[in-house]
Amino acid sequence: MSLISLASVKMASSSFSSVVARLNGLMTTTTTATTHFLKKAPAVATTSCMMMMSSTPRRSIKVLAALYPDPLCGYPPEYARTNVPTIKDTYADGTRLPTPKSKPEYTPGELLGCVSGELGLRSFLEKQGHTLVVTSDKDGEESEFEKHLHDADVVISQPFWPAYLDEARLAKAKKLQLVITAGVGSDHVDLKACKSPGVQSGRLRVHSSGTTSKEEEEKKTQQNSDKNKPPITVAEVSFCNSISVAEHVVMLVLVSVRNFVNSHEMARVTSNGTQKSMCGAYDDGWNIADLVQRAYDLEGMHVGTVGAGRIGLAVLRRLKPFDVTLHYTDFHRLDKSVEQELNLTFHETPQELAQACDVITINCPLHSGTEKLFDDDMIRNHMRRGAYLINTARGLIVDRDAVVRALNDGHLSGYGGDVWFPQPAPLDHPWRTMPWSAMTPHMSGSTLSAQARYAAGVREILECFLAKKPIRDEYLIVHGGRLAGAGRHSYIQDCHRKVEDEEWEEIHGIPA
Amino acid sequence: MSLISLASVKMASSSFSSVVARLNGLMTTTTTATTHFLKKAPAVATTSCMMMMSSTPRRSIKVLAALYPDPLCGYPPEYARTNVPTIKDTYADGTRLPTPKSKPEYTPGELLGCVSGELGLRSFLEKQGHTLVVTSDKDGEESEFEKHLHDADVVISQPFWPAYLDEARLAKAKKLQLVITAGVGSDHVDLKACKSPGVQSGRLRVHSSGTTSKEEEEKKTQQNSDKNKPPITVAEVSFCNSISVAEHVVMLVLVSVRNFVNSHEMARVTSNGTQKSMCGAYDDGWNIADLVQRAYDLEGMHVGTVGAGRIGLAVLRRLKPFDVTLHYTDFHRLDKSVEQELNLTFHETPQELAQACDVITINCPLHSGTEKLFDDDMIRNHMRRGAYLINTARGLIVDRDAVVRALNDGHLSGYGGDVWFPQPAPLDHPWRTMPWSAMTPHMSGSTLSAQARYAAGVREILECFLAKKPIRDEYLIVHGGRLAGAGRHSYIQDCHRKVEDEEWEEIHGIPA
Repeated sequence: MSLISLASVKMASSSFSSVVARLNGLMTTTTTATTHFLKKAPAVATTSCMMMMSSTPRRSIKVLAALYPDPLCGYPPEYARTNVPTIKDTYADGTRLPTPKSKPEYTPGELLGCVSGELGLRSFLEKQGHTLVVTSDKDGEESEFEKHLHDADVVISQPFWPAYLDEARLAKAKKLQLVITAGVGSDHVDLKACKSPGVQSGRLRVHSSGTTSKEEEEKKTQQNSDKNKPPITVAEVSFCNSISVAEHVVMLVLVSVRNFVNSHEMARVTSNGTQKSMCGAYDDGWNIADLVQRAYDLEGMHVGTVGAGRIGLAVLRRLKPFDVTLHYTDFHRLDKSVEQELNLTFHETPQELAQACDVITINCPLHSGTEKLFDDDMIRNHMRRGAYLINTARGLIVDRDAVVRALNDGHLSGYGGDVWFPQPAPLDHPWRTMPWSAMTPHMSGSTLSAQARYAAGVREILECFLAKKPIRDEYLIVHGGRLAGAGRHSYIQDCHRKVEDEEWEEIHGIPA
Repeated sequence: MSLISLASVKMASSSFSSVVARLNGLMTTTTTATTHFLKKAPAVATTSCMMMMSSTPRRSIKVLAALYPDPLCGYPPEYARTNVPTIKDTYADGTRLPTPKSKPEYTPGELLGCVSGELGLRSFLEKQGHTLVVTSDKDGEESEFEKHLHDADVVISQPFWPAYLDEARLAKAKKLQLVITAGVGSDHVDLKACKSPGVQSGRLRVHSSGTTSKEEEEKKTQQNSDKNKPPITVAEVSFCNSISVAEHVVMLVLVSVRNFVNSHEMARVTSNGTQKSMCGAYDDGWNIADLVQRAYDLEGMHVGTVGAGRIGLAVLRRLKPFDVTLHYTDFHRLDKSVEQELNLTFHETPQELAQACDVITINCPLHSGTEKLFDDDMIRNHMRRGAYLINTARGLIVDRDAVVRALNDGHLSGYGGDVWFPQPAPLDHPWRTMPWSAMTPHMSGSTLSAQARYAAGVREILECFLAKKPIRDEYLIVHGGRLAGAGRHSYIQDCHRKVEDEEWEEIHGIPA
């Protein structure tokens, strides 16, 4: 996230507080279980990769997780279905699904992303003597999250309920070694600050060798605080919910083009027994003409994605049989075989793509090169009149008010997505009232299906971290003071122009 | 439609009236333009296939069309887009799109399905001296439609706004020769009564040879009224909106499985500035847990279609890249190559299919073999707990109240569709208030894209009818007193069991 964005986060913090204060169900659960660890360690040794290290006593760590509040209807909920389908062991690109060595105590399909769900980590961590603090109260200086930040070793949050980690917060997190995104997209973390020595004074090295006691560890920390300032590792569970989001994209494309939202609204009866039509008059709930005057088939349209990574490519594959013409732009050109298979038209720039498309879907990460990429200029001077814009990537990639203007004056026919800024979006966020919207709160990547995968991925990352083993390269965003793994692929370059390493470092303050 | 259904139509007629009386914008437009015909005939001769017959004077006919009311916001509407995409000349099965010989006066993408849209027929018919009556007032004995029925030669209506033609109405339509469905699905017409001599006394033969004057024609009609009772031809514009509906099906599957409706509702702000959560409490519009506790990925699920004709097969093709397991049941087995390409599992019966599927989509016609196919027994004893049912075929294929019960007690996780009975559905129809609904008023097949195709198809059928040329076989449902063309394929057999010709005739009173 650029400095501009982070400034916005800070400015938004005070309004966050007022919103958050109104939330029911802000919860915090904390346990310190060092003694527990001693009793349970042998049992764990048989199932967890970290136990390969169990002969070497280690200090206990504190894991701080910001998760969304429990359902208003209580926890656990009554599940609509008894399970989630079993899917293949590997994703479409051949990488393996999360492979934690320890057996989860939960059943896939349970609600894990909320406070009481605890990402299924409580027992896993406590058995090893570690502390888990879970809170939904994540924004503002008085939040539970910030109260616990100073001595947290690991911070976890989901993009749906992001714990914003700007420079100031990172400076307070003296012991922070690892930031895990339970999902995909780590733009809520100031990646630059994760490497800055000024922020990281007093922090432990991620994979330092084990010590014999907590006291010794703390002593060593103090000794290292000035000269040895290893960076924070940022990791996410790549691909865990890419298909979830891709499905959401296809749904929102169809919902927007086919005018579903207004149609469904007309089919429902309000509490006073009448219907509100699309032009404001009350009618009898069957005004077909009012609906279909804005309903089109997708067939034959030109659909393009800005970004053709895991999500973008999955969207293209799913749209192929709809008999549309597919377009994409990305710094990483796809294989010729894929371009031919999907009959893709490649565009050098998002502007060029916009001119060719009736529907545009944004599937690139947020960074300085994509922030406000869809502004008044892009929408009015490059996008076709009557086009649809679908954004399930990040809210800041579009100019909030430019979208509202374009919907109000008809330049855009529809805007669908589930990403906002900030999150939670306040009730006066204009996207909550703008016309021709197919918005959801940010939830596309947190289906029960996805939760099972990213909970397992977080567990795998923690197992590796605790066992001082390497975290999978494809999960790494920042490591060793540099962009790494998925981070190097996704954040190093803008979607619409190449940034040389030197320029990147100048912009981001972190080597590519 | 079976006798049971037709009885329901009759019983519902009185409640129709009260609903219809409340509708604003019921409109009727009538013109008789015989003299006009004489002046304009030469100009028409160059563009219309009927003009191949123009040297033989013919009597003028009366075309009665029941179309849905104009938009409440007025006609023409402000269009969101400037046109509809051009698609291929042929459908997926190789049949050609509508090919009227006369050039339409409208531009594809205009709103044609409402009263003022007139299916683009006004000028076409009046230039030839024919009369076009268009009304939205279609239900009840006092309706404009019924007032004009007695001397109408041709009746047109759309499934979205069906002019129910039961035995009693057909008996009143002494001159009726041709019933056109501007769309697909002619279950609103009593197919049996279209062949019954008792009903058809006094009716002209469809393709009788031309006569020299209106008087002679009427004389001949009178002479033939007793012994020569040719049946009514029923025709529809097969395939014109099959892709439109298939897209709607995929959308509703995703909307239901991913819990879109409740999620979008939470993202919006109501007029009093608050949100209504899924468990009835008011909150702040960002209760992710409440949404995702019922949100799943489609990936990995088992999805089956009852009926694998034009729509069902298009749905299967579009779902293939979602990495689901596909199932189907149909009396017509698909080619082995198609089964292999889509990795389809064939089931002999809908019951067998239901047991294997998480999502079921209904894509078969309504007839005696499919009416209330999804009743309490099917839903509770064959469908899996937590399954989703998507019905864009016809409302009567499911038991209305069995669906409501299953949603209320959680046996079904969701019901999506856009077909109801009757149509328009009254405001107290329980599907307007049931939980976990993804219903729209019947509009899936009336997108502006589809309207352009079925308006052209109706024109093609009328051109053939007026020129006494054969109507395309694939457009025919009933012709010459028998099921024909598409009708023979779709209505002759039940989806779930074979009906021999004799049994069919016994059930339907019309030879197969």
